[in-house]
Amino acid sequence: MPDKITFAPPGTATDLEEGLALTPKFDASGLVTAVATDAASGEVLMVAHMNAEALARTIATGEAWYFSRSRGALWKKGESSGHSQRVVEMRVDCDQDAVWIKVEQSGGACHTGRRSCFYRAVPLGKAGAIALTPCEDRVFDPKTVYRKA
Amino acid sequence: MPDKITFAPPGTATDLEEGLALTPKFDASGLVTAVATDAASGEVLMVAHMNAEALARTIATGEAWYFSRSRGALWKKGESSGHSQRVVEMRVDCDQDAVWIKVEQSGGACHTGRRSCFYRAVPLGKAGAIALTPCEDRVFDPKTVYRKA
Repeated sequence: MPDKITFAPPGTATDLEEGLALTPKFDASGLVTAVATDAASGEVLMVAHMNAEALARTIATGEAWYFSRSRGALWKKGESSGHSQRVVEMRVDCDQDAVWIKVEQSGGACHTGRRSCFYRAVPLGKAGAIALTPCEDRVFDPKTVYRKA
Repeated sequence: MPDKITFAPPGTATDLEEGLALTPKFDASGLVTAVATDAASGEVLMVAHMNAEALARTIATGEAWYFSRSRGALWKKGESSGHSQRVVEMRVDCDQDAVWIKVEQSGGACHTGRRSCFYRAVPLGKAGAIALTPCEDRVFDPKTVYRKA
């Protein structure tokens, strides 16, 4: 990887929407939204962010890299947990501020131990305080997987 | 709908992740990320944002509402195009800053006329300038659908 990753800057709305050049529209923090789905089941596994370097590394290597807003750091999915994501397909959306990756997820995507971060359902047809419904069990024990050396 | 929609404020990380109260973690602009997938195919249709009112209306009505950052306005999906989204299921992620809705999409989700906003593939294993590959045809003509009265 070169030291400084850059993509061509976004052009007009028409260029972004109908062009065939990847010109990501990074936000004020230099990030695009990334949605990872399970390539086999279609389940949404996680929503995270990529900066230019994470996006370039993901494209180049076919392994998912992200940028952690809370830690302010580039992050290879699975570097702590071993639960990496092999990217089967990547797509970009109309205004190029979001990417969708279909991945083969080893273990679980969520740091809480579930396969998907979306392990609670929100009931519909309600108003006021909303009680969530758990809908996924843990597939690993985060205390074991994220144990410090 | 009451005039002012509020949700209980987020608690600790453990409350957010393991609690059964919906306490969305809105960003500095008052938004959460919303990912809409096709309930039948699993395809990601769009990535957008909801403010508290859009989220409450989506939960209460089972129809997708969003908040447009560019227009600064609440927006019922399909209000211009007729291409609404009936929500079959909603889930919230671990830190409650993103929701996933599985929808029955009428017509197409993308304002460019495609069923999904993710109509271009990003080739993997490349570095430098990236050429996109179109992978979805239009399902409607935006010039006709968004024609002004």
